[in-house]
Amino acid sequence: MGFHDKLTAAWARSGSMLCVGLDPDPEKIPSHLANDPEAIFRFCAEIADATADVVCAFKPQIAYFSAIGAEQQLEKLCAHIRQQHPHVVLILDAKRGDIGPTAQRYADEAFVRYQADAVTVNPYLGTDSLEPFLEHSGKGVIVLCRTSNPGSGDLQMLDTGSGPLYQQVAQMANDRWSKMGEIALVVGATYPTELAKVRSIVGDMPLLVPGIGAQGGDVAATVAAGLDSRGTGMMINSSRAILYASSGTDFASEARRVAIATGDEIAQAVNA
Amino acid sequence: MGFHDKLTAAWARSGSMLCVGLDPDPEKIPSHLANDPEAIFRFCAEIADATADVVCAFKPQIAYFSAIGAEQQLEKLCAHIRQQHPHVVLILDAKRGDIGPTAQRYADEAFVRYQADAVTVNPYLGTDSLEPFLEHSGKGVIVLCRTSNPGSGDLQMLDTGSGPLYQQVAQMANDRWSKMGEIALVVGATYPTELAKVRSIVGDMPLLVPGIGAQGGDVAATVAAGLDSRGTGMMINSSRAILYASSGTDFASEARRVAIATGDEIAQAVNA
Repeated sequence: MGFHDKLTAAWARSGSMLCVGLDPDPEKIPSHLANDPEAIFRFCAEIADATADVVCAFKPQIAYFSAIGAEQQLEKLCAHIRQQHPHVVLILDAKRGDIGPTAQRYADEAFVRYQADAVTVNPYLGTDSLEPFLEHSGKGVIVLCRTSNPGSGDLQMLDTGSGPLYQQVAQMANDRWSKMGEIALVVGATYPTELAKVRSIVGDMPLLVPGIGAQGGDVAATVAAGLDSRGTGMMINSSRAILYASSGTDFASEARRVAIATGDEIAQAVNA
Repeated sequence: MGFHDKLTAAWARSGSMLCVGLDPDPEKIPSHLANDPEAIFRFCAEIADATADVVCAFKPQIAYFSAIGAEQQLEKLCAHIRQQHPHVVLILDAKRGDIGPTAQRYADEAFVRYQADAVTVNPYLGTDSLEPFLEHSGKGVIVLCRTSNPGSGDLQMLDTGSGPLYQQVAQMANDRWSKMGEIALVVGATYPTELAKVRSIVGDMPLLVPGIGAQGGDVAATVAAGLDSRGTGMMINSSRAILYASSGTDFASEARRVAIATGDEIAQAVNA
């Protein structure tokens, strides 16, 4: 089953558009895990086990592993998610972007080494930098469009004559890249106006929407702006608000509680 | 000594603007190394040892290591270059780009884990995504501007009203980012007209110029377009043409021969 079909099935099975971002900060994980040599694997795996039935996707952020030389823990986490929670979409958040032969290596990193269902990529280098990812049949390529951070407008809002740059990216995704493979776009919940504009350009293309929770994006505004024609269409990501709901031994059950509450908030907005 | 000073000293010491890109493809490295469990470390280290006195910089490409789970070989290679060739600038080619807290992790990856002098980054997420790198005092932040690949114009040549996007990036680098840390820009040798334009915008800012050798960029045109007011100013990168000059046991001496010939070609163009 390819990325789009797996995602559609995950939305239906979980009844949720929530994606949990797995960004394990060694300074924030519960102290009772601190002496475990695989602390960040164990932390993320317990979060995943506690929330798998109420989410559509998990999104490990590779930088949190690579900064401390913990790639083997990321490999183990990805294997754990695939084996224990095979119905949940596994997104490697890597934001890679490079010229062709190097992009092939990054595609191997995401799809062969970590066996992710999808990977985030950066469009600045153009179509030929995306092709090596798109050539992996059945895998998802999630292209940055309008990112959630405060400075994202520096380039993304520059007027290109036919709309700001992020709209050009959405248009290219719709017109070209979606015909070459299984595409999705990243649009931040912190920019609901632009989220609605992207939705109007790309039809029912899936959107990965970070920025609710710690980053302050509003759930109701996000849902109103980003729903597709089927009443789904988004992977709405929350990381810190769920991961660090408690710093005690109850971190996983508290993560589940916040994940359910966030999922309920999304569902209420869908039905509003 | 910070990145800019180290680079200036490296140009003077080597008399060369050549940068050797260390992109070790397991399928292309000499067969006599194939059974070495650290084959790509050994291959790159021997290339570095054979060329260190005739280059200003080495640029390992992290994707070639991460695709095959060889981060420890990259750590060992970076340590080898710092210890054996401390006067040569060490650039980690990673093209990272992410929101603030994640960008901090990537900066740690480049500057703490691998102890690179500089790292390549992608500007699509804007100024706040560059800040965590720029905050590492004395380190170099090399921002993608006009990349060497055929499709780079898809976004980079879009007209933003005051010139194409890559010129906006050069202008931001000159006006803002260069005041926040030690900046350089990536401009491909395959686009000499744009290289000259970037040079006119950024004064004596260093430029990393990939695309000669296997990618077909012309050395004379590159030098004519990219020299700074001091007659230097570039790290002109060649990877495959040097790394794979020979597939036999003489690979390192042949790499040295091609590196010297390339350096001579650059020097002749400077003096033309």
